[in-house]
Amino acid sequence: MHDSPCTLGIDFGTNSVRVLVVETATGRELATAVVGYASGTEGILVDPARPDLARQHPQDYLDSMTRAVREAVRSAGDPFDVRRIVGIGVDTTGSTPIPVDADGVPLAMDPRFEGRLEAMAWLWKDHTGHEEAARITEVAGRMRPHYLAKCGGTYSSEWFWSKIWHCLRAAPDVFDAATTWIEHADWIPAVLTGTDHPSALKRGVCAAGHKALYHASWGWPDEEFLAALDPRLVRMRATLPERIHTVADAAGGLSPHWATVLGLCPGIPVAVGAFDAHLGGVGSGIREGTLVKIIGTSTCDMMVAPLGRDLPDIPGLCGIVPESVLPGSFGLEAGQSAVGDIFNWLVRFVGRGHEDLSAEAERLLPGESGLLALDWLNGNRTVLVDQRLTGLVIGLHLQTTPAELYRALVEATAFGARVIMERFEEYGVPVDRIVNCGGISARNRLVMQIYADVMNRPLRIARSAQTCALGAAIAGAVVAGRERGGYDGFAEATDRMTGVLDVVFDPDPEAAAVYDRLFAVYRRLHDAFGVAGRRDDLADVMKTLLDLRDEVRRTRISA
Amino acid sequence: MHDSPCTLGIDFGTNSVRVLVVETATGRELATAVVGYASGTEGILVDPARPDLARQHPQDYLDSMTRAVREAVRSAGDPFDVRRIVGIGVDTTGSTPIPVDADGVPLAMDPRFEGRLEAMAWLWKDHTGHEEAARITEVAGRMRPHYLAKCGGTYSSEWFWSKIWHCLRAAPDVFDAATTWIEHADWIPAVLTGTDHPSALKRGVCAAGHKALYHASWGWPDEEFLAALDPRLVRMRATLPERIHTVADAAGGLSPHWATVLGLCPGIPVAVGAFDAHLGGVGSGIREGTLVKIIGTSTCDMMVAPLGRDLPDIPGLCGIVPESVLPGSFGLEAGQSAVGDIFNWLVRFVGRGHEDLSAEAERLLPGESGLLALDWLNGNRTVLVDQRLTGLVIGLHLQTTPAELYRALVEATAFGARVIMERFEEYGVPVDRIVNCGGISARNRLVMQIYADVMNRPLRIARSAQTCALGAAIAGAVVAGRERGGYDGFAEATDRMTGVLDVVFDPDPEAAAVYDRLFAVYRRLHDAFGVAGRRDDLADVMKTLLDLRDEVRRTRISA
Repeated sequence: MHDSPCTLGIDFGTNSVRVLVVETATGRELATAVVGYASGTEGILVDPARPDLARQHPQDYLDSMTRAVREAVRSAGDPFDVRRIVGIGVDTTGSTPIPVDADGVPLAMDPRFEGRLEAMAWLWKDHTGHEEAARITEVAGRMRPHYLAKCGGTYSSEWFWSKIWHCLRAAPDVFDAATTWIEHADWIPAVLTGTDHPSALKRGVCAAGHKALYHASWGWPDEEFLAALDPRLVRMRATLPERIHTVADAAGGLSPHWATVLGLCPGIPVAVGAFDAHLGGVGSGIREGTLVKIIGTSTCDMMVAPLGRDLPDIPGLCGIVPESVLPGSFGLEAGQSAVGDIFNWLVRFVGRGHEDLSAEAERLLPGESGLLALDWLNGNRTVLVDQRLTGLVIGLHLQTTPAELYRALVEATAFGARVIMERFEEYGVPVDRIVNCGGISARNRLVMQIYADVMNRPLRIARSAQTCALGAAIAGAVVAGRERGGYDGFAEATDRMTGVLDVVFDPDPEAAAVYDRLFAVYRRLHDAFGVAGRRDDLADVMKTLLDLRDEVRRTRISA
Repeated sequence: MHDSPCTLGIDFGTNSVRVLVVETATGRELATAVVGYASGTEGILVDPARPDLARQHPQDYLDSMTRAVREAVRSAGDPFDVRRIVGIGVDTTGSTPIPVDADGVPLAMDPRFEGRLEAMAWLWKDHTGHEEAARITEVAGRMRPHYLAKCGGTYSSEWFWSKIWHCLRAAPDVFDAATTWIEHADWIPAVLTGTDHPSALKRGVCAAGHKALYHASWGWPDEEFLAALDPRLVRMRATLPERIHTVADAAGGLSPHWATVLGLCPGIPVAVGAFDAHLGGVGSGIREGTLVKIIGTSTCDMMVAPLGRDLPDIPGLCGIVPESVLPGSFGLEAGQSAVGDIFNWLVRFVGRGHEDLSAEAERLLPGESGLLALDWLNGNRTVLVDQRLTGLVIGLHLQTTPAELYRALVEATAFGARVIMERFEEYGVPVDRIVNCGGISARNRLVMQIYADVMNRPLRIARSAQTCALGAAIAGAVVAGRERGGYDGFAEATDRMTGVLDVVFDPDPEAAAVYDRLFAVYRRLHDAFGVAGRRDDLADVMKTLLDLRDEVRRTRISA
């Protein structure tokens, strides 16, 4: 076993990079290392005067990656034979575009732009381009409605073109100095394989399709459309290659320079990069019919559907992109803008701990508090695609406790999760299996049971605690190929390298029945406050919740 | 000055009785004494199995009153010449009916009913009769709609007939043993003057009109109506006198027995009793055009309007009763089911102090938090008259702080107060002056300023910290009459004996302008959740609040 082949998964998160060493035959995780980014606040460059701004220094990515790879490899064996590493995969946050010069070098590394925030990587959660995003949505809605149909109907301030256009308007000198912009996910594999010159760069379909309005049927957004936004954007388009790639393609082989830096063998194939949630889906064993929920501060909900099918546009989904998750399948991405962040908010708000609130909330019955909430404390990503929505709580009374609100907020996120699941199914993508991953799924029994009851499905939990890095390692195994000890395709690779824990959260029929009734009310409030023109009569809502509360309390007393 | 005439105000609250010794010429308060009721929890008899139940022992009223009168009189001078006391007035909570035997003696004092909660006084906040209340509303709506028109359209579980009928159904032996039921406010003056035999008892219009469906134009509710509820109720009606009385009438003179017990002179005139809020209005200097707001855990909003006018029914008001506050005027009563109780709820919820939250909330600008709440955590008394409504908060986000919610809840109660004021004005009862009394008005500057800004009126605060007891003392001065050192009417008595503090809370025009816009949103949510059939399109509400928030924040930055 000691000479069994392994791959590296390199997972760039918001604050740190994680490297995982995985045995390809079994998916066994031999070692992991996490290294934070050096600059800014927890790796993020901020500007107190512009709270929407979030940038990162590209040099941090390289420095932290180097340390993390060396540390992970060192601790994978005693000693670890580096010749066992047969492939490398990379995932990153996104959309996180980086302006680069004619040689593909980030402007952030050019002394002329030292300290300029506009020359940095524009982190996914940078919202400075919100005006540009609104304008893109408006112009596309008029000129190219099909562009929007694949990304839920609204172009986000988090995405590629919003950021580039905002740079053009806010810092034209940086925009002019940038030959092109490269997504973080594309840049790392290109750097590692020496293919980072703009003419050689392979761009991945994941970033292009989900964030940059690329689609196989029309390519990149056309010149006329970009010119309608700003004629100066047209220049950028010429730098975008006609052909794009999936994670099954290698960006190239590890360059001798980077082999030396990382202490690995030169020539190891490095997969084209993808976003963390997409490879997290892979690391959770995504396949047709499986909904993978990555539940953390927010969620990503990933599915795949066979490419051969005539898949309709699904309103409200963040993206429907051929091959963005797995080759041969549509990648479907949905998500909730806040989940764990909402629970964290209440913990701060009342100054009590999660365990404490959670233990008390667990003793309550569904419907017993009379509370109902909308989980929009950070807007709504799917299905409303509207950041200008806010949280709502109804049913408060003079005896309402923090634990009751905690439970109501968990339920609200579960109702939000159900809306997403139902949206998939309404548009012909059935969900027969749900696999959860991310910190909350592993740690919070209350949340998982409520989700099972609200969604009325058994919930499984991915075996790996780092599914994104595992997914990247799987991509590494696929580009390595069977001959080198990897796999020839993702189906076999995920079968062998992923799994679920033994624990299954099964829905409780009585709880599910109560939640069906609460969900009906949630859905009415969801539509009344989220969808223009509904005009529902809401005068019964408070009474319906009180009636249900009284009914549940009577049941408890008679039990 | 030492022999200047004085009167006693005896004010029976929920947990204690307060006695005030007041100089009639000036309203100067010479002494006060407060004595709690001995039985139960803080004077209230409760039943853990029936959370709606709240009763009191009538003997407690007499015992605590005796101690309080003696203590107040003793501390009013050194020594105090009791011959200076020329009149006595009484106010109580209500509706608080007491079942009595053929001699007018409470059944609670009959050994046969020892310990029986049904034989006690049924405290105002006893809600055990909620089914009966709903049925009374339903039957009256069908048979006698005019009965409901004077009490806001809904008969409450807190009121006279709901309680008596509930006793009939829950404890028929007590009902059968009761010759009649006497309101606490009627019983005390009757006891003090020896007129407590059912055939001699004077009943006040305040309790009769606001709680027992009495009206000058039709008298007590008729036999056919009562029989439709339950034929056994008809017997009760025969014990109710045709003639009823105002607080300008004396129940009689202090009996020799009670003169001895209290250490006062026999024969002192004792005014017919009224409810605390009504005499609180008097003690705050109520007059035509003045809205008196008694702000505590809940509020009472009192106005008067000249009897000669053709006053329409005002939907949602708790009562419109000729002479219930002042002779010669309609007494109008409105109120909010919870005000201070809502702030107390948040204080408990987040485990922080009022002062702390209030100080932080005071630094916020109107609209700055993006939050809006409905103040229905204990239902809505006026104008919706619906206990089955609950609190709502909208605009929550991941940075929302407890102080922001504290302020939003204060604002919500202020919006509720504005709805009441506007309802008075819409129906031809203009408000030219607002006088506040009660604990919150004196203590909480933040609340007063927000109310001034939201209502866009200057707010004044009654000089007396115990306006209910002062109002009772004024009634004592009126029944004493000018000859004995009192007054011949309420107008002169209130002019002389009441006043306001120097401090005036003036509305800030900028804040008022923002609150006008927030109130418009409040009113839409109020109607959407409180009034059947509205069908408003609410999809802009969250965005309207965010837009206003952003506008206010820009103003703050540019200021």
